[in-house]
Amino acid sequence: MLVVMHSHATPDQVEQVVLAIRQMNLTPHPMPGATRTAIGITGNVGAVDPRTLEVLPGVMELIRVTKPYKLASREMHEADTYVRLPQTVVGPGTFTMIAGPCSVENEAMILRTAEFLREHGVHLLRAGAFKPRSSPYAFQGLGLEGLDILRRVREKTGIGIVTELMDTDNADAVEEAADVIQIGARNMQNFSLLRRVAQARKPVLLKRGLSATLEEWLMAAEYIMAGGNYNVILCERGVRTFSDHSRNTLDLSVVPPVKKLSHLPILVDPSHGTGKRDYVPPMALASLAAGADGLLIEVHPDPDHALSDGAQSLDFAGLERLLESLRRLAEPLGRVIN
Amino acid sequence: MLVVMHSHATPDQVEQVVLAIRQMNLTPHPMPGATRTAIGITGNVGAVDPRTLEVLPGVMELIRVTKPYKLASREMHEADTYVRLPQTVVGPGTFTMIAGPCSVENEAMILRTAEFLREHGVHLLRAGAFKPRSSPYAFQGLGLEGLDILRRVREKTGIGIVTELMDTDNADAVEEAADVIQIGARNMQNFSLLRRVAQARKPVLLKRGLSATLEEWLMAAEYIMAGGNYNVILCERGVRTFSDHSRNTLDLSVVPPVKKLSHLPILVDPSHGTGKRDYVPPMALASLAAGADGLLIEVHPDPDHALSDGAQSLDFAGLERLLESLRRLAEPLGRVIN
Amino acid sequence: MLVVMHSHATPDQVEQVVLAIRQMNLTPHPMPGATRTAIGITGNVGAVDPRTLEVLPGVMELIRVTKPYKLASREMHEADTYVRLPQTVVGPGTFTMIAGPCSVENEAMILRTAEFLREHGVHLLRAGAFKPRSSPYAFQGLGLEGLDILRRVREKTGIGIVTELMDTDNADAVEEAADVIQIGARNMQNFSLLRRVAQARKPVLLKRGLSATLEEWLMAAEYIMAGGNYNVILCERGVRTFSDHSRNTLDLSVVPPVKKLSHLPILVDPSHGTGKRDYVPPMALASLAAGADGLLIEVHPDPDHALSDGAQSLDFAGLERLLESLRRLAEPLGRVIN
Amino acid sequence: MLVVMHSHATPDQVEQVVLAIRQMNLTPHPMPGATRTAIGITGNVGAVDPRTLEVLPGVMELIRVTKPYKLASREMHEADTYVRLPQTVVGPGTFTMIAGPCSVENEAMILRTAEFLREHGVHLLRAGAFKPRSSPYAFQGLGLEGLDILRRVREKTGIGIVTELMDTDNADAVEEAADVIQIGARNMQNFSLLRRVAQARKPVLLKRGLSATLEEWLMAAEYIMAGGNYNVILCERGVRTFSDHSRNTLDLSVVPPVKKLSHLPILVDPSHGTGKRDYVPPMALASLAAGADGLLIEVHPDPDHALSDGAQSLDFAGLERLLESLRRLAEPLGRVIN
Repeated sequence: MLVVMHSHATPDQVEQVVLAIRQMNLTPHPMPGATRTAIGITGNVGAVDPRTLEVLPGVMELIRVTKPYKLASREMHEADTYVRLPQTVVGPGTFTMIAGPCSVENEAMILRTAEFLREHGVHLLRAGAFKPRSSPYAFQGLGLEGLDILRRVREKTGIGIVTELMDTDNADAVEEAADVIQIGARNMQNFSLLRRVAQARKPVLLKRGLSATLEEWLMAAEYIMAGGNYNVILCERGVRTFSDHSRNTLDLSVVPPVKKLSHLPILVDPSHGTGKRDYVPPMALASLAAGADGLLIEVHPDPDHALSDGAQSLDFAGLERLLESLRRLAEPLGRVIN
Repeated sequence: MLVVMHSHATPDQVEQVVLAIRQMNLTPHPMPGATRTAIGITGNVGAVDPRTLEVLPGVMELIRVTKPYKLASREMHEADTYVRLPQTVVGPGTFTMIAGPCSVENEAMILRTAEFLREHGVHLLRAGAFKPRSSPYAFQGLGLEGLDILRRVREKTGIGIVTELMDTDNADAVEEAADVIQIGARNMQNFSLLRRVAQARKPVLLKRGLSATLEEWLMAAEYIMAGGNYNVILCERGVRTFSDHSRNTLDLSVVPPVKKLSHLPILVDPSHGTGKRDYVPPMALASLAAGADGLLIEVHPDPDHALSDGAQSLDFAGLERLLESLRRLAEPLGRVIN
Repeated sequence: MLVVMHSHATPDQVEQVVLAIRQMNLTPHPMPGATRTAIGITGNVGAVDPRTLEVLPGVMELIRVTKPYKLASREMHEADTYVRLPQTVVGPGTFTMIAGPCSVENEAMILRTAEFLREHGVHLLRAGAFKPRSSPYAFQGLGLEGLDILRRVREKTGIGIVTELMDTDNADAVEEAADVIQIGARNMQNFSLLRRVAQARKPVLLKRGLSATLEEWLMAAEYIMAGGNYNVILCERGVRTFSDHSRNTLDLSVVPPVKKLSHLPILVDPSHGTGKRDYVPPMALASLAAGADGLLIEVHPDPDHALSDGAQSLDFAGLERLLESLRRLAEPLGRVIN
Repeated sequence: MLVVMHSHATPDQVEQVVLAIRQMNLTPHPMPGATRTAIGITGNVGAVDPRTLEVLPGVMELIRVTKPYKLASREMHEADTYVRLPQTVVGPGTFTMIAGPCSVENEAMILRTAEFLREHGVHLLRAGAFKPRSSPYAFQGLGLEGLDILRRVREKTGIGIVTELMDTDNADAVEEAADVIQIGARNMQNFSLLRRVAQARKPVLLKRGLSATLEEWLMAAEYIMAGGNYNVILCERGVRTFSDHSRNTLDLSVVPPVKKLSHLPILVDPSHGTGKRDYVPPMALASLAAGADGLLIEVHPDPDHALSDGAQSLDFAGLERLLESLRRLAEPLGRVIN
């Protein structure tokens, strides 16, 4: 951490800051410069709220240096994390497809989708039993009945299940039914929920919040890891900006920094990210090229009659075409679609 | 709702859209224009996902017209809502102060703060027993012990308590201790939590999410009201933008639109909005002038040693000065600080 | 400036950074810490592109410390700047009103507006002869004919003229006609234009760019001041965010930081900021309470038939009511509307 | 366009809006619904400022329907535009590389770069003679001398020149030296400059503004096309959001909507978009996969000593590796790097 003093700060004010730093059991390193003094701070600064020093007289600003996450950081853990599932492995060696409808509507459509996916080499099905919806009047999902459907389809087809957990009340049920527990964008900083899935024995797919910085996102992952669950998969799904040409602004540019700063795998969800079916395939290909570890794709047997998010869902033929394109593109990149 | 066709859409494509609208039990109103046809839709369009029509051939875009919230809307309920508490009333006739430390640190500091507030005509104390923190390593609040402290201070001083609920697990305890249940910005779209407080017998202070549009915010209020709790107080606390001169971008400009579109009272939290003590008083005065119904202000007996958010907390003398300024400004505006 | 090394950086890498800093004729201050080394830099760092050091091996990040603006900074110039005009003075002692239509439509309406303003104690009229419009097909202003109209109305009524300059070609003409040269938001980083008005003998009203940080804005002012024109008036007019309840997001929260970091006066334009007539008066009052030095307000004799921006213009009665409200509010704040 | 009335609007208010629409020589289409009336408008609505109707009594909101751009729109011009240069063609059939240093520093480095590019099959060199810099104290480019260097290198090597025009004063000189005139992001809405390049006989590369919507961007292109220059190449270079993991937020998700709404070619500039060398190659590959028509890449013979933007420049070996990766990826996509 670094305290920057005003150019007209008095020596006494500098001294006061130095003392305040010592009182925090940290080591001050004053650096007198031509126009002003800066004071470096070393020691265990994780616990310090930088703004506390910032309001001392003569202080211009306080700059935090060290990253506040550790377990999620590549600095502490250089090797890539691979999340092992019964059906497949998620991580840099491969490119993982997770596909399925926005919500579980009935058993027939889930079964049909699962069989279609298995036939096409996709090992993980996504579908929501609990749906977070902006409006209280919109379809909210089938709930526990939806989980039962997913469980039965899993038994019949062997497909892996990725499904969202919205609250601690349903945590046991979702943990039991899911191969991967999804935490939605709106819950990325629902810290009670993060602490709960930290105790789950299933991997967690952690979507980026609508206005989360990379640091906040890795801190949310840190909550899960600090609680003992190291199997965290990140998922970019679009952020909130002024841009109005698509539903959200899919931030593919976050993929390389995630790879640099963290060892966790990262997927991309171009269906929510763009909100429009036509834009999903190009952004899916771009995700692969950008270095992501896989995709979350909405697919529906009959998108025009979907109960939610039909406009951003591919139909089966559309997914088939996308898988072909992805396979062609994966080869020169040394990746295998899985 | 309005469907806009492409300029080169065929008559047959227009006919298909008309049919699709009828199948939804809605009434189409085609409007042939010089370069293209638009089709108005009337009927109960609340349940329609606009993007479903948008993907039909020949459709350029679909524009939603009616607001998706009803109970929170001034159209349905013209008169201003007043939220009545044992200690005071929140609504346009007055200007409500809610002040206190970020978190409950110990009983002495809460009691001291409560007594100070009572002496200065402030009837509501805010303090968090449960604290949502970006880092798992930061102070997370005293939890149930903090609620006990708040309960005892309320008994001793008569002050009203505003405190945050973070999860359904602690809902009963918070509901019992609080006069107003606060839902934090990060939980504005925690729909399970909204449904829970919809059943509470205490008013809810609903903070705006970091990247929530006005519509999403009123929809979150709608969740609470649709569940039966009409005592919702909105609170602007800064949104997430590119702007980096303060912690968040306090969006005072949302106050007049809230007043126009909704009958619910709206407070402003300039402490979180700005993140810096020096900027709190001017933004507090501006909130009053902009037409807000009150303020949430962080105050701490010793801000430089606060366990959280000290840099944005006023000390007692600072709050005293602010109250004086607010009272002077309130008079020509016909408002009473309360 | 501060170079932060990776925790696993080698002593040799630290040494290389130290050498690179010395080669830039700057002084390195290595600070070995428990987990990593940081290297403070003192000397004339203004010319250094921080990202150059950032790409050296072992470097985690480089943090810039000193502000890149000087002349606009309160650190270098503590006293508030007052911009003196023939008709009035702009600066903290007063509260300056600048009002008028979006564009010069004809002489009659400008004259009528000027007379109305003079009668109501407003000394400065704003009106565009050159209009920056998003569409090439929209009304682009009367151009030089508009300047002639402004010049004649100035002669007849004595009112001061604030009008926009869009390009260097018309700089002489605008400089001659205007008492204050306005640089619009879209031209805030039109550096050729900034360099031109740096040579003007008239004060410059510099609107904040749609996505300008406070630092970029003060740097744009620095361009004008570095060229010799110290009479710069800043003007907040709304920024571009995800928020869609108004035309732009009027960022009143920038006023206190501007006052802290700079000595330049700052006005607010709630007409462009909100884009809707009804929201102008509350945001105008809030601007005064927040500590701004004045307002830019759109007023039109017949807003419903304005050639541009009618929806955000007050009519004369509306401005009259606003002036009364401002005067009532100014008194307890110790300000005088002018 | 569509006027939406309040649910409690009176029949008389509806009638007034109908009359106002007729007075604008447009045709109103009232649609009485269950809860409210909407009024469709057909005719030449391009000239109407929607907000004028919005402020009439009883009106809730006014919704614009038709796109305000025509020449840039695919609706009016279905076939893709190919921009033909002496050295190559820009458009969907190929994938155009434009590479070079941020600024012209001296003739040797430009010549060396041009020769390197030619040897590696790159036909267009980018380099700025005029540099827009946030700080007045930063290196501003060599100006006319820089243009002379570019001209000589073009003669010697035959490479095509892409260079930025910052103001109308230098328009003739830049037009003469350049094969493609670049308009920078900060000048996207410098309408005087757009009108000038509309008269140039050279194609224009139009970078997206830092906070420009897709509509505003296409409107800026429309300025150039409406003035007679149809050879416009769009270039995404990152937008301004809350996201701080890279210099800007490179919005690759704009590529598919641009392709859908417009016939103009679109390039991507990952160097400015990310601001960090390491992130350029993955985002370059992602641009190709997303369907862009080419890239603008910063390359420098010695990036660590570049006068500007060295940290985001590749060195020659880095570009060579990137070209190889692009060629491998282009094949399955049916594209040819050019």
